[in-house]
Amino acid sequence: MTRPGRPRSSEADAAILRAARELMIDKGIAGASIEEVARRAGVSKVTVYRRWTAREDLLAAAIESTAEGIPGRTDAEAATGEPDAALTYDQLSMIIEAALPEAAGTLVTTEYRALLAQAFGSRFTHPAIMAAYWNNHILPRRTVAIPVLERAVAEGHLPADTDVEVIIDMTVGALIYRLLQPGDITPEEMHQYLRRIYRQAGLLRDRDVPEGGISALE
Amino acid sequence: MTRPGRPRSSEADAAILRAARELMIDKGIAGASIEEVARRAGVSKVTVYRRWTAREDLLAAAIESTAEGIPGRTDAEAATGEPDAALTYDQLSMIIEAALPEAAGTLVTTEYRALLAQAFGSRFTHPAIMAAYWNNHILPRRTVAIPVLERAVAEGHLPADTDVEVIIDMTVGALIYRLLQPGDITPEEMHQYLRRIYRQAGLLRDRDVPEGGISALE
Repeated sequence: MTRPGRPRSSEADAAILRAARELMIDKGIAGASIEEVARRAGVSKVTVYRRWTAREDLLAAAIESTAEGIPGRTDAEAATGEPDAALTYDQLSMIIEAALPEAAGTLVTTEYRALLAQAFGSRFTHPAIMAAYWNNHILPRRTVAIPVLERAVAEGHLPADTDVEVIIDMTVGALIYRLLQPGDITPEEMHQYLRRIYRQAGLLRDRDVPEGGISALE
Repeated sequence: MTRPGRPRSSEADAAILRAARELMIDKGIAGASIEEVARRAGVSKVTVYRRWTAREDLLAAAIESTAEGIPGRTDAEAATGEPDAALTYDQLSMIIEAALPEAAGTLVTTEYRALLAQAFGSRFTHPAIMAAYWNNHILPRRTVAIPVLERAVAEGHLPADTDVEVIIDMTVGALIYRLLQPGDITPEEMHQYLRRIYRQAGLLRDRDVPEGGISALE
């Protein structure tokens, strides 16, 4: 049911986010004005402002939206920091393992890598974009991930002196660092690299996925 | 002694690198042409081209040069990946510990953080810059760091299943990730953060520096 006078259209939202992504890649963050985004998306500026009141929130959402609509997104979210706090360590490890091939495929796309470069590259030229991306999209994941890892430490799955916040930074940091290095990366190379990061972080055990896959754990 | 016809001036080099850093920060990588760099440095274009034949090599060297001239640079290099391969693990750990306060002070300057953002942000808009920075400045450090860490593993200072390349990526990655996050960072905050990264990576032991400092180890 839509509220009168405030129609919400997920199609319009998707077109706006896509237009913002394309403009950021083609013309940089400076070239992705609300006006240009609206024009390219084929909607009015009012439609854009109804959904995003600030340009930086729109651009941060557009960067975040790169992975949307790709199958396995939910698993990928679990792998990259949005796990349920009630997960056991074994379940967490298994979900990460199962999510990595799909996540790797998304991460190595030129669109994702280019937008990641734009986001971090804009840290000092357009600090409000990074601030919005950080506050709206990264911090909420950290808030969920920290207690899961703290429990893994408390239960003895990770060393007692593990610095949970730093482990998260090292895992995400290595991933970003890899994606911004020169050269192409195939999905399979990224899959193997992600396994190495997560294993080194202590979040992945070398084991076979049981028959029935991760659903066998539920 | 200078060769006739090819005078080399370290003062001119420093002025060129400084001009390139300032232009990258003020106008972005696109605005840092050889012509503009020469004009701002007060030298001829020929002088620039004698030293750097390609614009991307100049800009990569300019990014790298941010920390030059700061006391403790040699220690900072040891801490960030240029240690002598003959160092023992204890010496390495002690050198890192001693270098961190100075390194932290350099890393948190707005100039360094802004140039780091420019370098990684240019990965897809100006890929030759990142390629030059990577090949000329980052890869040589990794080449030195890897055998030092492999020996630390072989000698039992790090766990036998340590993934040395990934540990380097996680350490450098976390550092870059931290510097590109929103907000100011004080030198003392960065010093403590660096200690947490290096300790989590297994490269720093909690111990007191002996009387006489690291020179006591030599």
